[in-house]
Amino acid sequence: MPQQDRAYATREAILHAAAEEFDRLGYDRTSLTAVLARAGLTKGAFYFHFPSKEAVARALIERQSELWEQVRESWRGRGVDPLSALYGMFAESADRMAADVVLRAGVRLNADREVGYPGVPSTHVMWEKLIATYVAEAGERGDLRSGVDPDAVARTLCGAALGARLISSATTACADFPSRIREVLGHVLPCVASPEWKLSGSQNTPEGAVGP
Amino acid sequence: MPQQDRAYATREAILHAAAEEFDRLGYDRTSLTAVLARAGLTKGAFYFHFPSKEAVARALIERQSELWEQVRESWRGRGVDPLSALYGMFAESADRMAADVVLRAGVRLNADREVGYPGVPSTHVMWEKLIATYVAEAGERGDLRSGVDPDAVARTLCGAALGARLISSATTACADFPSRIREVLGHVLPCVASPEWKLSGSQNTPEGAVGP
Repeated sequence: MPQQDRAYATREAILHAAAEEFDRLGYDRTSLTAVLARAGLTKGAFYFHFPSKEAVARALIERQSELWEQVRESWRGRGVDPLSALYGMFAESADRMAADVVLRAGVRLNADREVGYPGVPSTHVMWEKLIATYVAEAGERGDLRSGVDPDAVARTLCGAALGARLISSATTACADFPSRIREVLGHVLPCVASPEWKLSGSQNTPEGAVGP
Repeated sequence: MPQQDRAYATREAILHAAAEEFDRLGYDRTSLTAVLARAGLTKGAFYFHFPSKEAVARALIERQSELWEQVRESWRGRGVDPLSALYGMFAESADRMAADVVLRAGVRLNADREVGYPGVPSTHVMWEKLIATYVAEAGERGDLRSGVDPDAVARTLCGAALGARLISSATTACADFPSRIREVLGHVLPCVASPEWKLSGSQNTPEGAVGP
């Protein structure tokens, strides 16, 4: 393996090993020693790539942030109605998190820093605004029941997604997060969508049809 | 003030001051020094009542556990239909938490210990089972739409309540938790209840009627 590829592989191995620990234990309880043991690396190899545990955490947070940016972009131009795009975005996010510990750890680290201490949880606020925009667009198309408040729907869905992730993480390492997210959407969207609205696109709905 | 009353008042002052800190910062970041400064007490006075920060945290966790026991009991014998009892129990819990920092701190301490680390979040599991029982009873009375899974509804509501509390705590010190909880119920119950079901009892529903 050329030296550059080896360096890349080592950096990825560190990120992956750290993600395994952060995902289970959070930032404070994760020890560098445990990360090195998991990756089979020396302190020297570690410090060649990262100056500190904090730097690894930041790299993981940055990576998840970039990925969500891509996911949001990809759903913007998908050509499905806003509520279906919302469903697809939530479902895809949960599927990716269940499958990828690096992503999961980044999400946890980011959320742990924003939620649980005084201050504005800016990632959460960003998602809440994005979801409210989707729901408001659905309203403009006539896809909502009368009286539905897009901001209230966004608050409910964001909170429900956060809670579902935390419970799923504590009980199944997020293995049941995809089904929990689909349950949430299946319990909320029919309440807010007009009776004529139908989920469009090739959405995978293993938790049963979305409909009242 | 008789000595016994004074001792009781001091103990309560410690619990209240500690609750203010735990509620904002969580267990790890709360310092005994800050608690004493807030209560205007010496270390000596503190140690007369509690052997450690951990002992105060345990007292707060126990207090919230006893209160929820009472709330659950009181709704068991209220004579309203199961979905209305569920609504009332959630709304009352949120109202109490918004009003009482001692309760809020106990709930946070308990949840922080159960969620976020591997292991069974037993309080959460208990609530999920209780809610599933209420929803299943609603089904037996014909108050549910066909195909509704009581366990799935319980998962959605429990996760949504946890997420709503965390976001509400981070943004408004739980001041908007009552309205967030009522929004969650207003977005979920109409999806799972049969069209004939109506919220019964003198439920306070400032976030609009519960209905599709």
